[in-house]
Amino acid sequence: MPTTLAVKDDPTDVKTLMAEIGRKAKAAAAVLATAPTDIKNRALEAAAAAVRARVSDILAANEQDMAEARARGLSAAMTDRLLLTPERIEGIATGIEAVAALPDPVGRELAAWTRPNGLKIARVAVPLGVIGIIYESRPNVTADAGVLCLKAGNAAILRGGSESAHSSRAIHACLVDGLKDAGLPEAAIQIIPTQDRAAVGELLTMVGTVDIIVPRGGRGLIERVQNEAKMPVMAHLDGICHVYVDKAADPDKAVNIAVNAKMRRTGICGAMETLLIDQAAADRLLPRILDALIAKGCEIRGDEVVQALDARVRPASPEDWDTEYLDAILSVRTVDGVDGAIAHIETHGSHHTDSIVTEDEAAANAFLTRVDSAIVMLNASTQFADGGEFGMGAEIGISTGKLHARGPVGVDQLTSYKYVVRGDGQTRP
Amino acid sequence: MPTTLAVKDDPTDVKTLMAEIGRKAKAAAAVLATAPTDIKNRALEAAAAAVRARVSDILAANEQDMAEARARGLSAAMTDRLLLTPERIEGIATGIEAVAALPDPVGRELAAWTRPNGLKIARVAVPLGVIGIIYESRPNVTADAGVLCLKAGNAAILRGGSESAHSSRAIHACLVDGLKDAGLPEAAIQIIPTQDRAAVGELLTMVGTVDIIVPRGGRGLIERVQNEAKMPVMAHLDGICHVYVDKAADPDKAVNIAVNAKMRRTGICGAMETLLIDQAAADRLLPRILDALIAKGCEIRGDEVVQALDARVRPASPEDWDTEYLDAILSVRTVDGVDGAIAHIETHGSHHTDSIVTEDEAAANAFLTRVDSAIVMLNASTQFADGGEFGMGAEIGISTGKLHARGPVGVDQLTSYKYVVRGDGQTRP
Repeated sequence: MPTTLAVKDDPTDVKTLMAEIGRKAKAAAAVLATAPTDIKNRALEAAAAAVRARVSDILAANEQDMAEARARGLSAAMTDRLLLTPERIEGIATGIEAVAALPDPVGRELAAWTRPNGLKIARVAVPLGVIGIIYESRPNVTADAGVLCLKAGNAAILRGGSESAHSSRAIHACLVDGLKDAGLPEAAIQIIPTQDRAAVGELLTMVGTVDIIVPRGGRGLIERVQNEAKMPVMAHLDGICHVYVDKAADPDKAVNIAVNAKMRRTGICGAMETLLIDQAAADRLLPRILDALIAKGCEIRGDEVVQALDARVRPASPEDWDTEYLDAILSVRTVDGVDGAIAHIETHGSHHTDSIVTEDEAAANAFLTRVDSAIVMLNASTQFADGGEFGMGAEIGISTGKLHARGPVGVDQLTSYKYVVRGDGQTRP
Repeated sequence: MPTTLAVKDDPTDVKTLMAEIGRKAKAAAAVLATAPTDIKNRALEAAAAAVRARVSDILAANEQDMAEARARGLSAAMTDRLLLTPERIEGIATGIEAVAALPDPVGRELAAWTRPNGLKIARVAVPLGVIGIIYESRPNVTADAGVLCLKAGNAAILRGGSESAHSSRAIHACLVDGLKDAGLPEAAIQIIPTQDRAAVGELLTMVGTVDIIVPRGGRGLIERVQNEAKMPVMAHLDGICHVYVDKAADPDKAVNIAVNAKMRRTGICGAMETLLIDQAAADRLLPRILDALIAKGCEIRGDEVVQALDARVRPASPEDWDTEYLDAILSVRTVDGVDGAIAHIETHGSHHTDSIVTEDEAAANAFLTRVDSAIVMLNASTQFADGGEFGMGAEIGISTGKLHARGPVGVDQLTSYKYVVRGDGQTRP
């Protein structure tokens, strides 16, 4: 194995280690900020080639992680997230190439105008600087996050979960190969070489070095990061997504969207957790929806109206309206039209993704305008809440905060801007 | 005086008071978020009319503040900031009208595209929510900040300095008149009715209620807010602005820009604090610049080369390169060309505004690309660092952070966005 995989498993001084990582990241960020597009893309393409060339290294590293996971008795869901196969590794390589193919977000002229005094003002996209990414078991985040940061001219400091440490390091080695091939600083994408939790504590307080933190994982991780980080955090804590079926819904669309939003994949943040049904149409529209969901293996927890419509429905408790199941369970509630749906979402939602099914343009506009979520949808499955599905190429996560980026965070959202003012001697009166 | 001016000067329970203010602000923000443009503008125009109608009330309130300031022996600079005259009050009214005349930033379609599956995706500007503004002596900030927040559909919670409390309340009463006239919630613009410092502490921890804090004032205020606030802060701590005079500078432009950047107004954040001169041209370009500055009453503190050029130059200490004088004092240093200038700014600057004077396009591009400041300029005075001068209509302040807004913060920067996705039944494969 190459020396870049060397791991200090027990650094005596995490603080010193992290300070050195931060120093290198800042120096790399200064180089990346003005790196030409073709050099960045060369690094990405070479990294993709390295991933393909090192498939057996990556598989061997992943087998170490898998063996440890089995020994520790991790759940099937956890080990599946951890597992790499030749197909998944090829997916990582093509994912890197897809980011290479994206337009360079740095240097974009976001706006430009000329003042009456002749000053030419342009707002130009620049990198954010140094981005810290803390993630859990999926080793592919190592590549996804690293290459998105690189494309946007940012230095990345990655901290993967201990379960996927060997896999992540093997993938990281490929990214370093790419950086070297392009003549870019190796420290452009660093991975923290220790699983000591104190390293995360350090990372979250490196103000002036780390510009932003992106946590990816479960609620426990996000909460810890949001509480401890001294710098801005881009994240979402919950994805309590709603589909509201209006009385003017097309019945077929309602069934298809409900089943897809809940059951396509139950474990993603864009999965529907609560179905709201217009009380004016519950008896007409809901039975087919419930049949289809139950046929797919979904457990339904409903209010009294919903229970009365189908004997298989269990009673919902008040906690159900605030629960992100991430499982084949759905809470279903009747509401008083679009106003009732909006009120429920305002009280119980998580400002992630909410969808209305209706053919009534007025109801649609009320919902799309008044629901205060990162993504609002009309007649579409909430499972489309994804940067790739949005055509943004790839995403580092979804933000439910309102500052800077909201919704899917892709390469464009990993930039800031500066004002470039060109004069010919103007002074202010 | 109307009841809206009633002040609880010693609330027994600041926590309860602030929670109530927060609750009202959130309720108002929900109304403002969908308020039509003409209603918001009507409130602004009515507020401007109220300012004109109540000139004598405002002057009387201001006289109370001025009398207290004189009794407390405040400096002439402080009392001048505090003073309102009929002309300054007319300026407040026309300022409000100028904001009414700006395009509504809410609802702007920032981007829109259609996916191959037919989903129509739009990124649409929405308000941020509730904005807390903490400011010091200038009472006009009450109007500036309140109306900018309103125009962008945000609820504002204002906390002015104790010195200007009476003036600020009188101006605030006019804004409330405008809100009432337009049928908007009075709580859309609230002013904290106590000078208890604990109220600020509360405001800075009202996460989930206050979306962002904008502090305006001296370094002490900004530092306290940046340290204590649990929500994002838009601000700049320092304005250590540089002008770099390159060897390829036009001598006349260099003199005019240096004098204007330093001496037009010395107390603003965009004032030049350090002049960097290319060592290849110091003896040719610097004497005229120093003459002109000294003739205007500026004290010069220079390095040894600068001292050797003019006997009136005092020696600069290492601290000078890191000092924001906000006074008629300038530090002057020779550097090794544009690279030396960039290195100095990277080490000593505050990422606010920096300008290069040169006729050499390569030097200009190097400076404009590599200097990592909110505003970079070519052949223009740093005193143009202002939202009004940028054509943004008005600004609530200048941000040197890289997240969300950088540079002047105008109405557009007081918005977030959401994604609106319109489908006709799409489900995700």
